[in-house]
Amino acid sequence: MRKNKKGLLIVISGPSGAGKGTIIKEIKNKIPDIAYSVSVTTRAPREGEVDGRDYFFRSYEQFKDMLHNNEFLETAEVYGNYYGTPRSYVEKLLMDGKDVILEIDTVGAENVKKQFPSAVLVFIVPPATKDLEARLDKRGTETDEVKARRLQASEKEFASIKKYDYVIVNNDLTDAVDDLLAIIRSTHCTVKLNSVLVHKFSGGK
Amino acid sequence: MRKNKKGLLIVISGPSGAGKGTIIKEIKNKIPDIAYSVSVTTRAPREGEVDGRDYFFRSYEQFKDMLHNNEFLETAEVYGNYYGTPRSYVEKLLMDGKDVILEIDTVGAENVKKQFPSAVLVFIVPPATKDLEARLDKRGTETDEVKARRLQASEKEFASIKKYDYVIVNNDLTDAVDDLLAIIRSTHCTVKLNSVLVHKFSGGK
Repeated sequence: MRKNKKGLLIVISGPSGAGKGTIIKEIKNKIPDIAYSVSVTTRAPREGEVDGRDYFFRSYEQFKDMLHNNEFLETAEVYGNYYGTPRSYVEKLLMDGKDVILEIDTVGAENVKKQFPSAVLVFIVPPATKDLEARLDKRGTETDEVKARRLQASEKEFASIKKYDYVIVNNDLTDAVDDLLAIIRSTHCTVKLNSVLVHKFSGGK
Repeated sequence: MRKNKKGLLIVISGPSGAGKGTIIKEIKNKIPDIAYSVSVTTRAPREGEVDGRDYFFRSYEQFKDMLHNNEFLETAEVYGNYYGTPRSYVEKLLMDGKDVILEIDTVGAENVKKQFPSAVLVFIVPPATKDLEARLDKRGTETDEVKARRLQASEKEFASIKKYDYVIVNNDLTDAVDDLLAIIRSTHCTVKLNSVLVHKFSGGK
């Protein structure tokens, strides 16, 4: 399957409750070799979240130091909490030939695309907005106020879909996972990511 | 899997002997609903070839009439024989929502891309040129002169890979078929082929 030596950067965005986490978990099961970029955050861990696996949980002061040292590929502020993607961590994985999944918001995705033009941007949407509300209810970890803010943020996120390469509608988990697997596999076959091979076959012309 | 209503045009090119025919046959087994555009040709049928299934075998006069009536999407002349893709046949299949595979040369692929900018162009290459020679030998239907001309034509074809969207190296048939399946599936998820969906979610902004 893998043809190019450098890893592929796969950026996943979508409104909270669209099922991004579940899809990514399934992808990790199907492609054990794929890497997931763990973000740094200043927010408090949710129940069951593990430091270094789900997030690197850091203080606001620590986060500010990292920001100051240009250690982030992109950062985001969500409801007063800060999130950041550690730059060197991602770059090392890519250089090692690992495909890396980044789960970030639409502003972060735009920033990453500027720095990694070959990154593939995937937007995941739930079947309908009412489903999104239901999934957030099911999760049951948010207050009404937080939920309302999340829904508002979702609308803002949706407006950015046009900047993405792919859109997956999470009607059915198996289909959504197969869509993402196909996107990753096909991107490895793109002519622009196989310049060495193309050069060889086209006789350097 | 299918999200957009209009079918997808998949253009397959590659040197003679790269295994295009075998890969396409496997794709037809995996996606029974996919359509294969049968070309019109003035060349004589090879053993086992059936009119209307492998090609529409027509006389030079008949071909010239079709050309005159603008009935072809693209045409090619190969070793004195003429080939053409019937325009209305392909357009009807696409409008009916069928994905259509076109197996044509690099010049034809360029012409089709101009008329169908959303067509996805896939170039299939054998592992190495010596393998190509061996496969042509194995087929055993060509004289030395025809084989030499085919190899020369292959080199010319290779020079066009850069104009393609994807390149598949046919090292292993199963892998090559999975690559093509992934390309077809992922293309159905592209934002540009899902304008209705994207418009709906992005609130028409």
